[in-house]
Amino acid sequence: MFSSRPPCNVGDSVTDVETPALLVCLKKLEQNLNTLKEAMKSFPSVKLRPHAKTHKCAMLARLQIQSGAVGLCCQKLTEAEALVQGGIQDVLLSNQVINKKKLLRLASLAKSAHIAVCVDSERNIEDLSEAAKTLDVMLDIVIEVNVGGFRCGVEPGPDVARLAKKVMSLSNIRFKGLHCYNGRNQHIRSLADRQTAVNEVIEKTKLALSALKESEIECNYVTGGGTGTFHLEAASEVFTEVQPGSYVFMDVDYGLNLDGEEKFVSEFQQSLYILSTVQSVAENRAIVDVGLKAVSLDSGVPTVKNSGDQVYISGGDEHGVIVPPGDLKVGDQLWLIPGHCDPTVNMHEWIVGMRDGRVESIWPIGGKGPGI
Amino acid sequence: MFSSRPPCNVGDSVTDVETPALLVCLKKLEQNLNTLKEAMKSFPSVKLRPHAKTHKCAMLARLQIQSGAVGLCCQKLTEAEALVQGGIQDVLLSNQVINKKKLLRLASLAKSAHIAVCVDSERNIEDLSEAAKTLDVMLDIVIEVNVGGFRCGVEPGPDVARLAKKVMSLSNIRFKGLHCYNGRNQHIRSLADRQTAVNEVIEKTKLALSALKESEIECNYVTGGGTGTFHLEAASEVFTEVQPGSYVFMDVDYGLNLDGEEKFVSEFQQSLYILSTVQSVAENRAIVDVGLKAVSLDSGVPTVKNSGDQVYISGGDEHGVIVPPGDLKVGDQLWLIPGHCDPTVNMHEWIVGMRDGRVESIWPIGGKGPGI
Repeated sequence: MFSSRPPCNVGDSVTDVETPALLVCLKKLEQNLNTLKEAMKSFPSVKLRPHAKTHKCAMLARLQIQSGAVGLCCQKLTEAEALVQGGIQDVLLSNQVINKKKLLRLASLAKSAHIAVCVDSERNIEDLSEAAKTLDVMLDIVIEVNVGGFRCGVEPGPDVARLAKKVMSLSNIRFKGLHCYNGRNQHIRSLADRQTAVNEVIEKTKLALSALKESEIECNYVTGGGTGTFHLEAASEVFTEVQPGSYVFMDVDYGLNLDGEEKFVSEFQQSLYILSTVQSVAENRAIVDVGLKAVSLDSGVPTVKNSGDQVYISGGDEHGVIVPPGDLKVGDQLWLIPGHCDPTVNMHEWIVGMRDGRVESIWPIGGKGPGI
Repeated sequence: MFSSRPPCNVGDSVTDVETPALLVCLKKLEQNLNTLKEAMKSFPSVKLRPHAKTHKCAMLARLQIQSGAVGLCCQKLTEAEALVQGGIQDVLLSNQVINKKKLLRLASLAKSAHIAVCVDSERNIEDLSEAAKTLDVMLDIVIEVNVGGFRCGVEPGPDVARLAKKVMSLSNIRFKGLHCYNGRNQHIRSLADRQTAVNEVIEKTKLALSALKESEIECNYVTGGGTGTFHLEAASEVFTEVQPGSYVFMDVDYGLNLDGEEKFVSEFQQSLYILSTVQSVAENRAIVDVGLKAVSLDSGVPTVKNSGDQVYISGGDEHGVIVPPGDLKVGDQLWLIPGHCDPTVNMHEWIVGMRDGRVESIWPIGGKGPGI
């Protein structure tokens, strides 16, 4: 029913891949996995739980486990299902799951894997306990704290202790700790400003921990941080776990964080591309088959790999305009570097892994979609 | 492998639909189909070929055929495949298909349906003829003309005749006519300005027709126009076919065209919603489970149905922030009106059709994806 045909076969030359296709340079991907593994050696007491919202792909998650991760994070139930079905044993759903049918689906995953989930309301905690009881499983509960993102999460203070007590009062659920993440901080350009922003996260996290301590509730799990800040949270002596996600792929937006003073982010390599084909050439432009249904423009347009002076201009839903056209001919392939990796990956169904110009792997993006 | 579970069952109450889900009010959809059917009676010599890039759904395409369409347009090969597999007999792919493997897939569809495709280069015409010969089918070829969009298409002049002659010189392909479309014109706010823009399209189209006439090439097919301008092209006595797409669903952006002087666009009703669930409530905000992976923000944020003063602020990839929170509680559903229908639909896998608060149909979006 769905257009789930892969765009190539293993062994194909990259030039034979049908487009638009999501292409990953496996060497660069492996470098990124290794760079993070090495970086984490500076923080021996901090665990690594990469975020799978970036790739939604169990095959890639397994490489992350092989590279030292204790488990994966994800943001949607469909992602958790794809990860567990793909063999991941330990998953934190770093978001709230509300609907009762969904809570049963979540509890069902705990039959096969260790499952934790974030909460920020009492009713949700009650519903989680009910669902876990129904299926006779144990769910770990992580309280989400608003550490400055003003999205989900309770304020760092008495509400944290109130929710923890609520968790401890009910069966089949277990208080695990705190989720303290501010996504916006990842993209603050200068390291100094990012450190300042993370200091606020750390202060608020300490407030939340104090509230627990005042209520004599033990807490030895604090998770958060992303590709732009994980080393700052890891160095805080407050966080016990970090959640970088985009580091596997990188994108134009993260590239703007590279200001020369950067300790880790600048070491991650661009591994992700959108492979496009030139479908039309005119005097002043070439048109490629990648528009905003194949590359997310939320954080800016893609750049063109090895482009010289060529830039991508949005051509709407299905087209990109490349100016100047240079020597481009109809049928030529262009490699585009997406502005924002996560939502771009979500528009595709397969990750084509390539090495030395050949397709080595074709991984399904099993958790893709709006996250029902 | 893919998260292709539908978000509900037929017969469910809408309040039981798991979210994020794409919801269509069937009454409004039917009204829109009927409004267009009635509108086309003003132009008895002009045919209707709605554009399926909006919905990518064969079940909806079949309703369009039942409502007077002679066939469908689509923009990607995967959409053409979904339409033909879903029973549509006549499909114009209003875009270039380049890769030779793709051309064989296109030719294969001509075994089951009447297939036309746009071209703007000689080499592509040769490749199309080869593919059609290989599979012993006939493909109709439509020459795309740049009528002011500066995307694909040859300039209106001798190049049009050159390409038409090329088509006529080769076997298994047949010159059908001209594709003259400028997407940007659809969204020009005032009808007067839109008419001015369409006049330019019409003038350029006449130039292209003159070039054909000078070469004694007969042409009795000119296709173009969208939801915002179809009635202008239809009234031009130059266009023989129009291609509105968004009229079935509408969106916030098209809503901005409603300036009181509008003849047709203002009659189309908003039928499409993103159903979301409140997952978190704080003093100054509520958070819903629809972010930019479930609603495209390229033409602005969604609005909230029956919201009073509540607005949606982007909360990133997976969240939307609703302010003020009003009486919203965790678990409440909100209906969001997407800024831009086409790329939003492309992020989903199912269209949930509802009537009187119940789910009546669940249609797969078979042509979804980047369009490999």
